[in-house]
Amino acid sequence: MATQGRVITCKAAVAWEANKPLVIEDVQVAPPQAGEVRIKILFTALCHTDAYTWSGKDPEGLFPCILGHEAAGIVESVGEGVTEVQPGDHVIPCYQAECRECKFCKSGKTNLCGKVRLATGVGVMLNDRKSRFSVNGKPIYHFMGTSTFSQYTVVHDVSVAKIHPQAPLEKVCLLGCGVPTGLGAVWNTAKVEAGSNVAIFGLGTVGLAVAEGAKTAGASRIIGVDIDSKKFDIAKKFGVNEFVNPKDHDKPIQQVIVDLTDGGVDYSFECIGNVSVMRAALECCHKGWGTSVIVGVAASGQEISTRPFQLVTGRVWKGTAFGGFKSRSQVPWLVDKYMNKEIKVDEYITHTMTLEDINKAFDLMHEGGCLRCVLALQP
Amino acid sequence: MATQGRVITCKAAVAWEANKPLVIEDVQVAPPQAGEVRIKILFTALCHTDAYTWSGKDPEGLFPCILGHEAAGIVESVGEGVTEVQPGDHVIPCYQAECRECKFCKSGKTNLCGKVRLATGVGVMLNDRKSRFSVNGKPIYHFMGTSTFSQYTVVHDVSVAKIHPQAPLEKVCLLGCGVPTGLGAVWNTAKVEAGSNVAIFGLGTVGLAVAEGAKTAGASRIIGVDIDSKKFDIAKKFGVNEFVNPKDHDKPIQQVIVDLTDGGVDYSFECIGNVSVMRAALECCHKGWGTSVIVGVAASGQEISTRPFQLVTGRVWKGTAFGGFKSRSQVPWLVDKYMNKEIKVDEYITHTMTLEDINKAFDLMHEGGCLRCVLALQP
Repeated sequence: MATQGRVITCKAAVAWEANKPLVIEDVQVAPPQAGEVRIKILFTALCHTDAYTWSGKDPEGLFPCILGHEAAGIVESVGEGVTEVQPGDHVIPCYQAECRECKFCKSGKTNLCGKVRLATGVGVMLNDRKSRFSVNGKPIYHFMGTSTFSQYTVVHDVSVAKIHPQAPLEKVCLLGCGVPTGLGAVWNTAKVEAGSNVAIFGLGTVGLAVAEGAKTAGASRIIGVDIDSKKFDIAKKFGVNEFVNPKDHDKPIQQVIVDLTDGGVDYSFECIGNVSVMRAALECCHKGWGTSVIVGVAASGQEISTRPFQLVTGRVWKGTAFGGFKSRSQVPWLVDKYMNKEIKVDEYITHTMTLEDINKAFDLMHEGGCLRCVLALQP
Repeated sequence: MATQGRVITCKAAVAWEANKPLVIEDVQVAPPQAGEVRIKILFTALCHTDAYTWSGKDPEGLFPCILGHEAAGIVESVGEGVTEVQPGDHVIPCYQAECRECKFCKSGKTNLCGKVRLATGVGVMLNDRKSRFSVNGKPIYHFMGTSTFSQYTVVHDVSVAKIHPQAPLEKVCLLGCGVPTGLGAVWNTAKVEAGSNVAIFGLGTVGLAVAEGAKTAGASRIIGVDIDSKKFDIAKKFGVNEFVNPKDHDKPIQQVIVDLTDGGVDYSFECIGNVSVMRAALECCHKGWGTSVIVGVAASGQEISTRPFQLVTGRVWKGTAFGGFKSRSQVPWLVDKYMNKEIKVDEYITHTMTLEDINKAFDLMHEGGCLRCVLALQP
């Protein structure tokens, strides 16, 4: 390819400062170094984690940066030593890497690969601890090891999932974050069994994916909890079969659910990122076995709390990141499941736009009717 | 037997008021009603839960009452409908019942039988919601459904474990609480695997039983954490092979253990009942898979807290009650294991006394050198 080994200048949405509109800039994207992959991003969705860092509330957020971590594209070129993907491969960049060599990958107990985390956590590449992005010579930080709000990005090879070449990239980009997080929270982290009662706090994309995961796992009662009752209609399509709006009750929501379920649910999922809701989610679980999974990401510095008696009497408190899925191994499997119509993806996409409209897309996220907005990045 | 069907007058240690010395009284013990068993208690040990309720800090503590819940004895008589034990059987009264009929027992997921809890929680028997104990006509509350600081007690039949008739009651009385709690926390709740690293906070009877459980499970590193370094010598005999005294370090103890273990332990156990230590125990666990089990009982109203990130990055927070053992089914199995020399019991008994010395025995509990003090109740 003509671009291989050269700097590419392309459009990207740069977050110059916290809480200021993103600016579409001509960005220089350096060629991939050893163990790196440059990807032409075709479609990216927006996720609340992007909005959180952009807001400036994330103390680890670095500016200027290129946000974005839920996307799909085509490999443009690869650096030295990269063997598992080649130019032309269709891929999903994964913010959670999978090196298959570190103690985390080898443990068989977690998907939290540690290989590139020290670099991605500070917005650079592992090889030289520098960024591959710049605007007029000024470096722009990477974000989550993905930076998909750019027509081209550079990621570590351990962060690239090669997917079926016929998969529609404008849809499967969603399999880079929210949908797997919800499905995996049910299948991998909670391991919900058939016949279980489930409560889901927050009916955004992740909460709906939890509902879908619970439905496919055979859960009987799938109780959606949200302060926006309008969400119930769409939630039904994903498997939610009961709805509770905390605003309709004077009692604490955990008590409402305990009463409704003769002692509490078998599994609960917090999909908001609110520490008070996390407590309610734990405390609405059944004594003896109820398991609560924290899926949402709380703001920095906030803490969860409860009486230890809740745990001593048999409740279990867990969390999940990317639903416990091993990214390179399992994202392709999720893509295949989508292509076999075993999991939903299209139904989460409520809006489509182009990169130029990214600030409008962020505004949309705060409206109840928006699940996922997918941006087309190429003309 | 001459006593069957009649009120028995015997000696018992009555807690008339919170935090006042127990008084040895002549107590009237009514015959067992339907579904009840009257037991001649031969030996009882003291546990910190007795001391906690006695202290008045337990808001659910009722006075006057007869404390005690770690004991062994012989069935004196049984009420109507009791089929599984008969007079002369050697038994251990169990504060955690097992009815085999309630949804908890049938779940296969928990030992927390609910059948008699509503009665035992308020110091009475289920049948008529009254006490079987009185002193000169004044009712004395039961405690934990056991009240073993009495030469005779009445318990629900679902709370009686029939054990091997040759088992030495002066030893196996310990299998009514502390030792199973520690062993079961490891075997049933955490399910520690061979080769694991384990941290144990608090090296009293329960902590040492955790160590023994971890050793038999094949744990490699068993790190004992206690502010009393004198406990290390005895702890070695139970399997602890490293010792950390938080007083020897300026750093938070969770950081000390994370540093010592290249990222944290696989399993930790809090055996004190201190909510700050519970947090440390969670946070010293390894990212990705570390599991922390709360074994200690915190004072009423206290809360545990941590950053949700601790759970989202793969740590699991659990608790255990009676080590997850099903009492009637598994206490006899533990007694057999003791008789086959597969688990320790004798080694926890540091003092023996008679009922008259019970107040001295409580004083002893606060001394580092005391693990379990066993009282002989019969002349």
